[in-house]
Amino acid sequence: MTDAPASGPKPTIRDVASAAGVSKSLVSLVLQGSANVSDSRRRAVLEAMEHLGYRPNRLAQRLSGTRSGTIGVVLNDIRNPWFVELLEGLTASLHAAGVSPVLADAYTDQRVGRSSVETLLEQRIDGLVVVGTTNESAAIENAARSLPVVLAGTREPALPGVDIVVNDDDAGARQATEHLLQLGHRRVAHLQGPGEVGKLRRLSFERTMRDAGLEPTVVAGGVSEESAYSAASRLLAAPARPTAIFAYNDIACIGALSAADDLGLSVPQDLSLVGYDNTYLAKIRHLSLTSVDNGNLAVGVEAGKFILERLTTPSLPARLHQVPSQLQVRGSTGHVPSP
Amino acid sequence: MTDAPASGPKPTIRDVASAAGVSKSLVSLVLQGSANVSDSRRRAVLEAMEHLGYRPNRLAQRLSGTRSGTIGVVLNDIRNPWFVELLEGLTASLHAAGVSPVLADAYTDQRVGRSSVETLLEQRIDGLVVVGTTNESAAIENAARSLPVVLAGTREPALPGVDIVVNDDDAGARQATEHLLQLGHRRVAHLQGPGEVGKLRRLSFERTMRDAGLEPTVVAGGVSEESAYSAASRLLAAPARPTAIFAYNDIACIGALSAADDLGLSVPQDLSLVGYDNTYLAKIRHLSLTSVDNGNLAVGVEAGKFILERLTTPSLPARLHQVPSQLQVRGSTGHVPSP
Repeated sequence: MTDAPASGPKPTIRDVASAAGVSKSLVSLVLQGSANVSDSRRRAVLEAMEHLGYRPNRLAQRLSGTRSGTIGVVLNDIRNPWFVELLEGLTASLHAAGVSPVLADAYTDQRVGRSSVETLLEQRIDGLVVVGTTNESAAIENAARSLPVVLAGTREPALPGVDIVVNDDDAGARQATEHLLQLGHRRVAHLQGPGEVGKLRRLSFERTMRDAGLEPTVVAGGVSEESAYSAASRLLAAPARPTAIFAYNDIACIGALSAADDLGLSVPQDLSLVGYDNTYLAKIRHLSLTSVDNGNLAVGVEAGKFILERLTTPSLPARLHQVPSQLQVRGSTGHVPSP
Repeated sequence: MTDAPASGPKPTIRDVASAAGVSKSLVSLVLQGSANVSDSRRRAVLEAMEHLGYRPNRLAQRLSGTRSGTIGVVLNDIRNPWFVELLEGLTASLHAAGVSPVLADAYTDQRVGRSSVETLLEQRIDGLVVVGTTNESAAIENAARSLPVVLAGTREPALPGVDIVVNDDDAGARQATEHLLQLGHRRVAHLQGPGEVGKLRRLSFERTMRDAGLEPTVVAGGVSEESAYSAASRLLAAPARPTAIFAYNDIACIGALSAADDLGLSVPQDLSLVGYDNTYLAKIRHLSLTSVDNGNLAVGVEAGKFILERLTTPSLPARLHQVPSQLQVRGSTGHVPSP
């Protein structure tokens, strides 16, 4: 073919499909060498590629020898929407390099006795991004022996050669607590969440309270809506109940809100509530939760960059990247009620 | 090895890992022929398999020649939790046959200009389950030419050889509408949703209203929380506003709830609201939405069975399976306000 354009915009898979009169999916099947393509269509696609001077994306091509151009992404619990923007940022990062995410949900897999990490390892993934705190530390550690691994929105398991991209949990919890203190609250409780992230937020809460000369109350219950509901119900039924609760995340904050509802307490008149993650739940006007924005879009973008760097340079030392957090004040917090 | 147990419980991958002194992940890597396993560890795993008489799951083994033991699952929008129980049921069904789901989110992929179906086709998936209504009809049609495809919670694209597993949208919308009529509502509006499912719910709403001698009001706005908020804001600001709104789904119902909040209307005193999908959002006490339970767990279980049947018998004719729907009455519906 001598009439191939020597310059101009780089041809895409879409151009190839169009020139060959087939779908993009079919071009993909040809690129991956699928047997499910007829000879005549395969020939049409290959001729169109040659004619247009099409080249598969460079990174994808570099990976194509033994690799798939795919990154496995483990979500810790698909029922909690905290990860939505993180996944958007991660997908955008990967896509820019011609790499695709495939997902697995640790919560669902665990319910049927499976490990998400193992499910993804059975695929031809080139790397693994673990989103949020899971019970799969052992499987992650094993995966890290043979694949680049990045943790996003979680700090464990801390492993050599595994990057961590998170928000600044210490600053976020401090902002949440200081906001409540500035509103005059003195009896503030924290619903603690799991893992290292849960520990950092709790420690920061405790430090901020003690720095103000106050005794922090910490209870378990930040893991889920139900656990938060139970914990907050107990807290709020006790004498000298807290006038404010800082929950580990938005889902737990909603559990606390439900507990307040059941006890006839109005938010924020009788009780102030702060969540974490600034999910779309916090933004629902009827809930309107003050919440710490954990910069999840940026966390996802950075996690994508880190895993791509690890694909080309597997020997990089482990890195910790913290995205700034920022409190979003909404209707669930107000001045301490007069005694 | 002559001391292999002749009977007893079937050895699992866990037993192999334990006998070989390695992780389950490493056994998986050996099973898939990974090059990332040292010779000594591979030998230990293979010897343990022989010793224990381990056999990979039968269906997975049957598929292992050219297949992956993996089903691609496209979720239409990971931000809307309507699919959570469907995914649980689907995962349980697949797992029972030794097959794993890998997920992709059409919403996220679309934001970066990708097709989820194409992303999954680039994996070694054996079949495809499309969960919810997407914009990827063309890609799904192409996929169905080379792979078993099942639609779950959506009715399109209707294709030869593609099964559809859904709830009974006609009955669900009728129950929702009749509930509002029984509470005395006469001015009822519907926020219409996308696709064939949206059309069926709308038609059933209109029929039920007309059968009661009432004029149905239908507006677009059932696609998202924001679109529902805008549509409901307009409806509720108009003269002779509706006293009840039946929304296409729970997310849209929450948008309508926010619109009512902004206009100072109380739910259910001034306005009754019904959602659809009976998500965890509907169950949040502070929201407490009356909603149609679409039997999503059963939809997922059946979709899993259907795709497994198609793996072994690809030539099956297209089937339509409808799971019963059932209205769950909660706090968002009440008697029509007195004029």
